[in-house]
Amino acid sequence: MEEYIYLDNAATTFPKPEAVYRALDRANRNAAVNAGRGSYALAEQAKQLIEDTRGLLLTLTKAKPAAEVVFTPSATFACNQIFGGLPWKREDIVYVSPYEHNAVMRTLHFLQKRYGFAIEELSVDAGTLELDLEKIRYQFIQNPPTVLAMTHISNVTGYILPVEEVAALTDTEKMTVIVDGSQALGLIPVRLEQSGIDYYIFAGHKTLYGPFGVGGYIAQSTGNAEKLGLVIAGGTGSNSLNLEMPQLLPDRYEPGSPNVPAIAGLKAAIETFGSNYEEMCQTIEEHYQKERELTELLETELQKIQGVHTYFPQDKEKRSGICSFTIEGYFSDDIGMLLDEDYHIAVRCGYHCAPLIHKYLKDEPYGGTVRVGIGQFNTKEDIRQLIHAVEEIARG
Amino acid sequence: MEEYIYLDNAATTFPKPEAVYRALDRANRNAAVNAGRGSYALAEQAKQLIEDTRGLLLTLTKAKPAAEVVFTPSATFACNQIFGGLPWKREDIVYVSPYEHNAVMRTLHFLQKRYGFAIEELSVDAGTLELDLEKIRYQFIQNPPTVLAMTHISNVTGYILPVEEVAALTDTEKMTVIVDGSQALGLIPVRLEQSGIDYYIFAGHKTLYGPFGVGGYIAQSTGNAEKLGLVIAGGTGSNSLNLEMPQLLPDRYEPGSPNVPAIAGLKAAIETFGSNYEEMCQTIEEHYQKERELTELLETELQKIQGVHTYFPQDKEKRSGICSFTIEGYFSDDIGMLLDEDYHIAVRCGYHCAPLIHKYLKDEPYGGTVRVGIGQFNTKEDIRQLIHAVEEIARG
Repeated sequence: MEEYIYLDNAATTFPKPEAVYRALDRANRNAAVNAGRGSYALAEQAKQLIEDTRGLLLTLTKAKPAAEVVFTPSATFACNQIFGGLPWKREDIVYVSPYEHNAVMRTLHFLQKRYGFAIEELSVDAGTLELDLEKIRYQFIQNPPTVLAMTHISNVTGYILPVEEVAALTDTEKMTVIVDGSQALGLIPVRLEQSGIDYYIFAGHKTLYGPFGVGGYIAQSTGNAEKLGLVIAGGTGSNSLNLEMPQLLPDRYEPGSPNVPAIAGLKAAIETFGSNYEEMCQTIEEHYQKERELTELLETELQKIQGVHTYFPQDKEKRSGICSFTIEGYFSDDIGMLLDEDYHIAVRCGYHCAPLIHKYLKDEPYGGTVRVGIGQFNTKEDIRQLIHAVEEIARG
Repeated sequence: MEEYIYLDNAATTFPKPEAVYRALDRANRNAAVNAGRGSYALAEQAKQLIEDTRGLLLTLTKAKPAAEVVFTPSATFACNQIFGGLPWKREDIVYVSPYEHNAVMRTLHFLQKRYGFAIEELSVDAGTLELDLEKIRYQFIQNPPTVLAMTHISNVTGYILPVEEVAALTDTEKMTVIVDGSQALGLIPVRLEQSGIDYYIFAGHKTLYGPFGVGGYIAQSTGNAEKLGLVIAGGTGSNSLNLEMPQLLPDRYEPGSPNVPAIAGLKAAIETFGSNYEEMCQTIEEHYQKERELTELLETELQKIQGVHTYFPQDKEKRSGICSFTIEGYFSDDIGMLLDEDYHIAVRCGYHCAPLIHKYLKDEPYGGTVRVGIGQFNTKEDIRQLIHAVEEIARG
């Protein structure tokens, strides 16, 4: 791996902090028992580790006191549990941003066939590609939303969506607001308590620098969470003789053996951010500034190269550590192959599981974009080598 | 951990072979990228590792050439994908053994409310508690099954169910046969190619000695697998602009980032069994004989203790490494607590997520059984210490 420049951190952050690797190995070797289902101290300790990790996530997101953390095997499963569990009616209208990932869009498309609700796209400004709050206000008056689903950071352009402002455009009491924080939690501050956000989804293995195998969501009020119907059933280690899933949260939504080592890894990852909200926010700010700086360097230099198109939010304050580009005369996949083979630089090319945004990016002639996913462990030198490579490729 | 005697291997095997820990750590540190979704060699290598693991599972189960392996986060999710994806009709009849786990039973109960099919229990002999093939034959004539679901090994008594014989009692072409091998694969030989089994479910972290975070199923014919409807949708790294899940297997049923380290751990675990079917079967036979020997020792000695009731299959050939007992005058949970606190022995107590079997075991006055889950790393000394502890507890 040493010889590689890894710039696919938007797919999964890599590497992870050493503390995460150690926690994973320690948990695998010492704590990988069936949490809370045994009658012995080790199982209780594993259960406590899981509860402590829930607590850390509530601190990190500054959620309401009654909020619940539900763990799922990945953010994709969290999307399926939330959207699949909503009490859909035929006349419902779900608004989505055009930046949504297929974890949201394919799930909604699949559920739409069952329940018949409508899916509307939030308006964007055709110039800046930012959400157009004025137009959205008008959309909401014309056709009030029942559900509002937005990614917090675009996994294609790195655009930070104004999720709270959009939610505030309507009566959040009357609708369910779902934010997909897969690319955001750990990189930008999240403060759920005062927001109208009902469900905030996280992916352990992305901006949180935890391992694969754990994602989930924060449900801001127990009442709301209880309204979710079941998507997945199974054993919970509780009330085994009852064929109904327990009403108790989070058990109700967490059937099967909990992935103790993955949760232990996530715990170690969150602990690297700090032990209270202020410390965590400071680390988040450092992560963000570092990625922003590398993003600025990349954009400034890419724009100097003839034939290169960049897809960055115009407003620098709305940028993060993800950005996309294309090169005239090249399919993006070919650029990815050249970067890999000739320069040992790992990026991701194509449409990035984001089906809606490309009509705005107009990147289809290139087969999608080359996406650069910057992470905490990247350096200016990494970016300079990428720029050098792009210069050579663009020169032909 | 050293001081503990771990006898909860039916919940999850522990410890794992050293090779599994090493593979997990190596994969976390070097290969935890987003398999097949990047445009770079590392992502391709991760994809290859996953494909190799599918190959090993096909070898281990001696499946038909056209069989497909689908990975899910756990056996519970595999149950939900299979049962949730079947083309249910109101008039369908699903037969289950009374030994089923809630991963099967709660899932069927949940789906029954949506689709209205009937659930019937396979007959057992009231004396031996074995499946009663003659009565089942009669049941099938009276009410032919559409779906037949059986666990391969009971997670309460260790009974090895005659799954192929039951399947052979009816026309397997006309029904779907699903076997839950969570407690079986790796402990008893499985040979799917000649069987009428359509879906064979496995749990990575149980008798296979792999890690948490990966389970799945072997679909014996592509045609059959394609008939499954979707339960979970999301990104597949392929055909991103299409809101439909791809038809392609296994992509169709594996949305989200694959858990590369967990699959790497499972691969290492299966490799400890051997490199071809014959070698694997020999290791399986060794595993089985070892566990059977400890089970025999346990039963022989437990039966000598006054006030102890044992719940073992009468036919020794149908025993495995799981067994249950109760003690007159004790709730099982209390025994578990005593074993934990006074003897540092870890067992599991209660109903074990198996809702149906207790009416036959008649263990409800004890609040369920004390389950002893024997694994590869247990010794005669472990069993002797357990017997000594039970003697002391039963003496009062």
